[in-house]
Amino acid sequence: MARFVQNRWYQFAWADEIADGAVLTRTVLDIPMVAFRTDAGKMAVLDNRCPHRFAPLSEGKREGDTIACPYHGLVFNTAGQCVRNPHGAATSTLAVASFPVLERHKAVWIWVGQQEPDENLLPDLSFIDAAPETAQLRLHTAVQANYELLADNILDLSHADYLHASSLGSGFNTRAKSTVEEHADHFSIAWRSDSDDAPPAFNLESPAKLWTEVDWYAPALMVLRAGGHPVGKPERGIDTLNLHNMTPETLTSTHYFSCNTRNFLIDDAAFNAVLREQLIHAFQVEDKPMIEKVQRQMGTPDLWSLGPKMLPIDKGAVLARRRVARLIEAAE
Amino acid sequence: MARFVQNRWYQFAWADEIADGAVLTRTVLDIPMVAFRTDAGKMAVLDNRCPHRFAPLSEGKREGDTIACPYHGLVFNTAGQCVRNPHGAATSTLAVASFPVLERHKAVWIWVGQQEPDENLLPDLSFIDAAPETAQLRLHTAVQANYELLADNILDLSHADYLHASSLGSGFNTRAKSTVEEHADHFSIAWRSDSDDAPPAFNLESPAKLWTEVDWYAPALMVLRAGGHPVGKPERGIDTLNLHNMTPETLTSTHYFSCNTRNFLIDDAAFNAVLREQLIHAFQVEDKPMIEKVQRQMGTPDLWSLGPKMLPIDKGAVLARRRVARLIEAAE
Amino acid sequence: MARFVQNRWYQFAWADEIADGAVLTRTVLDIPMVAFRTDAGKMAVLDNRCPHRFAPLSEGKREGDTIACPYHGLVFNTAGQCVRNPHGAATSTLAVASFPVLERHKAVWIWVGQQEPDENLLPDLSFIDAAPETAQLRLHTAVQANYELLADNILDLSHADYLHASSLGSGFNTRAKSTVEEHADHFSIAWRSDSDDAPPAFNLESPAKLWTEVDWYAPALMVLRAGGHPVGKPERGIDTLNLHNMTPETLTSTHYFSCNTRNFLIDDAAFNAVLREQLIHAFQVEDKPMIEKVQRQMGTPDLWSLGPKMLPIDKGAVLARRRVARLIEAAE
Repeated sequence: MARFVQNRWYQFAWADEIADGAVLTRTVLDIPMVAFRTDAGKMAVLDNRCPHRFAPLSEGKREGDTIACPYHGLVFNTAGQCVRNPHGAATSTLAVASFPVLERHKAVWIWVGQQEPDENLLPDLSFIDAAPETAQLRLHTAVQANYELLADNILDLSHADYLHASSLGSGFNTRAKSTVEEHADHFSIAWRSDSDDAPPAFNLESPAKLWTEVDWYAPALMVLRAGGHPVGKPERGIDTLNLHNMTPETLTSTHYFSCNTRNFLIDDAAFNAVLREQLIHAFQVEDKPMIEKVQRQMGTPDLWSLGPKMLPIDKGAVLARRRVARLIEAAE
Repeated sequence: MARFVQNRWYQFAWADEIADGAVLTRTVLDIPMVAFRTDAGKMAVLDNRCPHRFAPLSEGKREGDTIACPYHGLVFNTAGQCVRNPHGAATSTLAVASFPVLERHKAVWIWVGQQEPDENLLPDLSFIDAAPETAQLRLHTAVQANYELLADNILDLSHADYLHASSLGSGFNTRAKSTVEEHADHFSIAWRSDSDDAPPAFNLESPAKLWTEVDWYAPALMVLRAGGHPVGKPERGIDTLNLHNMTPETLTSTHYFSCNTRNFLIDDAAFNAVLREQLIHAFQVEDKPMIEKVQRQMGTPDLWSLGPKMLPIDKGAVLARRRVARLIEAAE
Repeated sequence: MARFVQNRWYQFAWADEIADGAVLTRTVLDIPMVAFRTDAGKMAVLDNRCPHRFAPLSEGKREGDTIACPYHGLVFNTAGQCVRNPHGAATSTLAVASFPVLERHKAVWIWVGQQEPDENLLPDLSFIDAAPETAQLRLHTAVQANYELLADNILDLSHADYLHASSLGSGFNTRAKSTVEEHADHFSIAWRSDSDDAPPAFNLESPAKLWTEVDWYAPALMVLRAGGHPVGKPERGIDTLNLHNMTPETLTSTHYFSCNTRNFLIDDAAFNAVLREQLIHAFQVEDKPMIEKVQRQMGTPDLWSLGPKMLPIDKGAVLARRRVARLIEAAE
């Protein structure tokens, strides 16, 4: 039984998390994995468990395109094939799972599923490539909560008015109500107002025209656009484009990848550094602890089993969860 | 299936554990709960899980008679009703469980069960009200053991002769043997002697007339009276009345509430402070570690499943466990 | 269902781990046990759980041949019989399990099983008695891994060429291939060469004649002989005899007992101390972490359930596992 959506690209890491010559181990969809870059610069992601005795390949020697098991010396190439067995023939049965890799948008993506990898299934995140480094912030945060709870959090931005009242909350998201547009491969949910109070962190004169738009892709990749400008003064506006992407580690823990980009002070490295601390702080102090407590109080990753009383603000979450459930069923 | 006795008052806290304006969170019978006092001074105890998404209400804003969910702003009154929903109608389905509260005997009691709360089911503990603060010591201790193991400990005071040999043990409880009186709503078990060695902590001339009497109420509330006087010299006697009340946190952890009162040095605050340290020390160093080790070595909360070899000293424990089992069965 | 091989001697401890007057608690085959020496010097090993309420006997008073339960004072002799019950008759049903003890080869062995203890089933380890204290090193190490994984590690010494490349690895074990001799009560597996590179730790001129021989006894006791000499110069040779004995604590944790003896520098206490640090270091830094990681990555003690791709080097491991499985089946 598939526990996770299959035949999709999952973000394994930000590319700069994996230094040349180093390995990065990370459990994704319950599978311990190891990533490394070959001398030629190609990224490889393998099951980290040697097929012989499940020793961690990540602790073995890296040489050229290969990695050796630290326990008994089997050597594997980036395709997971055993290319050297010091104790006998390097047969094809000695292979370890290798995950097709796509390096795009400053991230390392792996394909999970039996079908052929399809690059078209990776959403267009070229805003990440376009933004200068001084106008973007990429983070990886480990969260002890189910990935769908974390997606729900972005798909219901009314939470900003309560959980982030002093920074992102102005009541706008609660008042605006959301509108949804469904598409074959994704859906969009947006909160828009022609005139409302701007969130404190926007540092905008109120009343302001405001927009918050989320594009959701299965299983839990979201592009969030948020911005605004004082009513009638579009030239004083700000706009941000953000990735919020949840890669399941297990059913109750998640790799939360985020990337924040903006259209103002884009060359200001000092401002970028300040913003980085603010983002980390807000996430560490507000979202992450709240959602981890929710997960603990739930006691299960299965939200529906607890009979939650859903509200209109859960429209996006319900849509996303239905799509995820259908995709998992389809893969079974 | 009910795992715990229903339709009884459970002690949630000592009243002074909940400061004005503060909240106290505590898991009772597997349910995360939050207690707070309204501006008008009324105590409320609610399920701490918001019915929407199970966020901890305890972290939300307290205002007047209400508490707001910190995640999406639903506001609940002390009856658990949603009185404000920023995202739609505050319908009755949005309610959170509220536990009927009784404030009595310096404690906060909650009613758990489907029947109407019945104040008559709370045993009379007016000795707590009668004792001056300088002659009483109230404690709450978290113990990692099943509540019935902790009740067994009080219902078999022969353990004092071994576990507390240097303070409460004189061999008296072992020699005296216990007598039991059964009543409809409780039973009494007593150890009495007209002449025996007094426990060291009694600081009494021996031989002494001695008494130890325990009244047990379901599921695990016990009033313990212990005292004595030198034979023929009742004017030199001492007497103590004590509450030992076990509120299950889970099947393998317990809130141990105790209250010690005495009839000597009742205005001596300094003696009271010394006694407090002695009681805490004895409990932390002797009873609690022993019973937690017993629980660990048992590996299950179910004593009978392990085939224990019961002794005559377990008379009270067996009676209590039978009554508890019958009450749980009756509630199923 | 027996989860472990029955009717065998299991090493409980090295004799000097149990000081006179002290107790040693250790869980063996899932059973919490306590060991102590009587005033007369006899070693006793009992189930550490009092049959009354499962309190730890290890915390009670030791007197003469007896140990008293710290909770209610039942007193047990070395046969596990209750010899004093302060609360009634010391009946035979109050007994606690007592494990037959054999003190031999500087170790304490306990018999587990329903059959009569058979001293002949303990392999001859007189090399331990023969070696002077300055030429032997006895260790006990707690490992969080299944005992068969630890036996596999010794039965496949090719791992030395990879995991211990800088000390014990020269490629010899990989090149030599192993030969196996089966016997009724044990089997031998050996790696031998008339001329190969000596491992760095041997400090021998190469090429050398080399030998590594392991005698395996159920369930996981191994005597390892390893040594060598420069080709044609037997007078410059070294030889070592070592015990590697795995006593299951649980299915996923093990008491690893080892004893290293040697035929050189046998009176050199300073060298012995240096070697001790080297052995501890190698084990703590190389074998133990690797095998614990293997266990974690396996997620189960059952190797076969994971479909490992076995290699010719697993010959010994497969033999041992088959014998263990047969012995467990036979006991069911």
